[in-house]
Amino acid sequence: MKLLFYTAASNGAAWVDALSRAMPETSIGTWPDDTTTAADYALVWKPPPGLFAKLDSVKAIFNLGAGVDGLESMPRSLENVPLIRLVDAGMAEQMVEYVAYAVLRRYREFDVYAQSQREGAWQPRRRLDKSGFRVGILGIGSLGVVVAAALAAFGFPVDGWSRSRKQIPDVRSFAGTAELKEFLGRCHVLVCMLPLTAETRGILNRATLSQLSKGAYVVNVSRGALLVDEDLLALIDSGALSGATLDVFQEEPLPPSHAFWHHPCITVTPHVSAVTRIEESVAQIAAKIRRLEAGLPVSGVVDRARSY
Amino acid sequence: MKLLFYTAASNGAAWVDALSRAMPETSIGTWPDDTTTAADYALVWKPPPGLFAKLDSVKAIFNLGAGVDGLESMPRSLENVPLIRLVDAGMAEQMVEYVAYAVLRRYREFDVYAQSQREGAWQPRRRLDKSGFRVGILGIGSLGVVVAAALAAFGFPVDGWSRSRKQIPDVRSFAGTAELKEFLGRCHVLVCMLPLTAETRGILNRATLSQLSKGAYVVNVSRGALLVDEDLLALIDSGALSGATLDVFQEEPLPPSHAFWHHPCITVTPHVSAVTRIEESVAQIAAKIRRLEAGLPVSGVVDRARSY
Repeated sequence: MKLLFYTAASNGAAWVDALSRAMPETSIGTWPDDTTTAADYALVWKPPPGLFAKLDSVKAIFNLGAGVDGLESMPRSLENVPLIRLVDAGMAEQMVEYVAYAVLRRYREFDVYAQSQREGAWQPRRRLDKSGFRVGILGIGSLGVVVAAALAAFGFPVDGWSRSRKQIPDVRSFAGTAELKEFLGRCHVLVCMLPLTAETRGILNRATLSQLSKGAYVVNVSRGALLVDEDLLALIDSGALSGATLDVFQEEPLPPSHAFWHHPCITVTPHVSAVTRIEESVAQIAAKIRRLEAGLPVSGVVDRARSY
Repeated sequence: MKLLFYTAASNGAAWVDALSRAMPETSIGTWPDDTTTAADYALVWKPPPGLFAKLDSVKAIFNLGAGVDGLESMPRSLENVPLIRLVDAGMAEQMVEYVAYAVLRRYREFDVYAQSQREGAWQPRRRLDKSGFRVGILGIGSLGVVVAAALAAFGFPVDGWSRSRKQIPDVRSFAGTAELKEFLGRCHVLVCMLPLTAETRGILNRATLSQLSKGAYVVNVSRGALLVDEDLLALIDSGALSGATLDVFQEEPLPPSHAFWHHPCITVTPHVSAVTRIEESVAQIAAKIRRLEAGLPVSGVVDRARSY
């Protein structure tokens, strides 16, 4: 069996090393150096368009992440080849850490206390009402469910929104476009965990963000292109929103001139909320290849019509 | 029945209001305004010494907090009167929020990212090894147990230290002076939740803090007098410790000239990690008075020899 590997990231050697150890019987070629023989499976992260021409005979394409928006240039000729994304692979735990930190920081007003400290001022504040501090998870997929449950365990009221209705203990599920407005109106913190698709691109814009509760806070941990940057900035500057914690951006690295870098109400992190863990990912992919070779179904197959 | 009420805090009216609603059949006098008749029960927070002279006939003294170190001036003549402290009363949930925030902030290096943001620098970092990021809870009482469990749920390895050994799932229990050094040596974050007693005063000093893992971080949410301020500062400045989040201080408010205010590695908050919630506390006290009147035992009775 032969695999074709490509990543746009700088850790390709570590991936190949882990794959060699997990699947010692397999030949691993890397694009564009080694494409002499046809591969059975492709493992890719943000591949260049030219790579796809070498995939005519693959049985499946594995995407080395949860979001498959880096595969937009995939030709229609491959649309019947199963495209399989990573499912969790250690990312849910990292997302829980990142989102819990951002929500606790806002709820307990640690930024206000930091400002008091800079001023040398001892100023205890009355606690915010937790029962009224509702967190909304926009995008209740395999990661969103785990984050929602973790926030509910902290005692926050938690809602979730997704295309189809979900059953999650302690989390109220809103579904579809018809219920988006009501969902947004209840949020004091909005956590965006949606996949990036044609439907969700720019979904966080002036119209939707204006529906959030007065002074709401935004956390984006999925994809930068879901957010219309200037709309967020305008709503923060008008006081309609209180601020944002952003881990993802339309252009990454975030350009040096971007207003997010030095806005006092915006926290920027360099796309680190949840990174693909190589060992867990390789174990997941190796197990799925074994299942596919045995003719068994696997999880994480992307619905091409939905793009996730 | 008559209660005598006193608090050194500014929210006395709210307490008396809540007590009146919870125990409408009871007369409530406040020190020093109303001491005309002998009280059956005293409810006090950091009372002045003169108050104790009026407590000859009380059946029990309720302390309006978890720590009873504000009662050091209580005369020996009252040592056989049950002294009852608050047990949780909403404080554990608040402690979990505060400590989880501080630990996640350190573990996920959000301060480093904040510095990168100030510099406009996109600098993703390799994640710290979580299995080696051990959190030690110094003081595994009713609050410490809840905090330890919450941190273990995040996937942190958690140890606890207390006078006597405890059985807590997923938490290794160290007990007594003989095991303190081993406990400290394993900690990457030390969370101090001990009561302040003659034995624990100054327990966080150069000798003990030097035993922590290299670059360890300190969180103090119990009492300021447990910590020798200048020893902490010296160890941070030498690089032996990486910093501290401090909510409690030897003198509160923290004096304007104190070095903690403007140290770049120290976060100061104004004793807000967990505040007594009036409604929950009053419900707890009212229920305990009913039990005492019926001759039943209650929880939270302070061991005078141990002072907690």
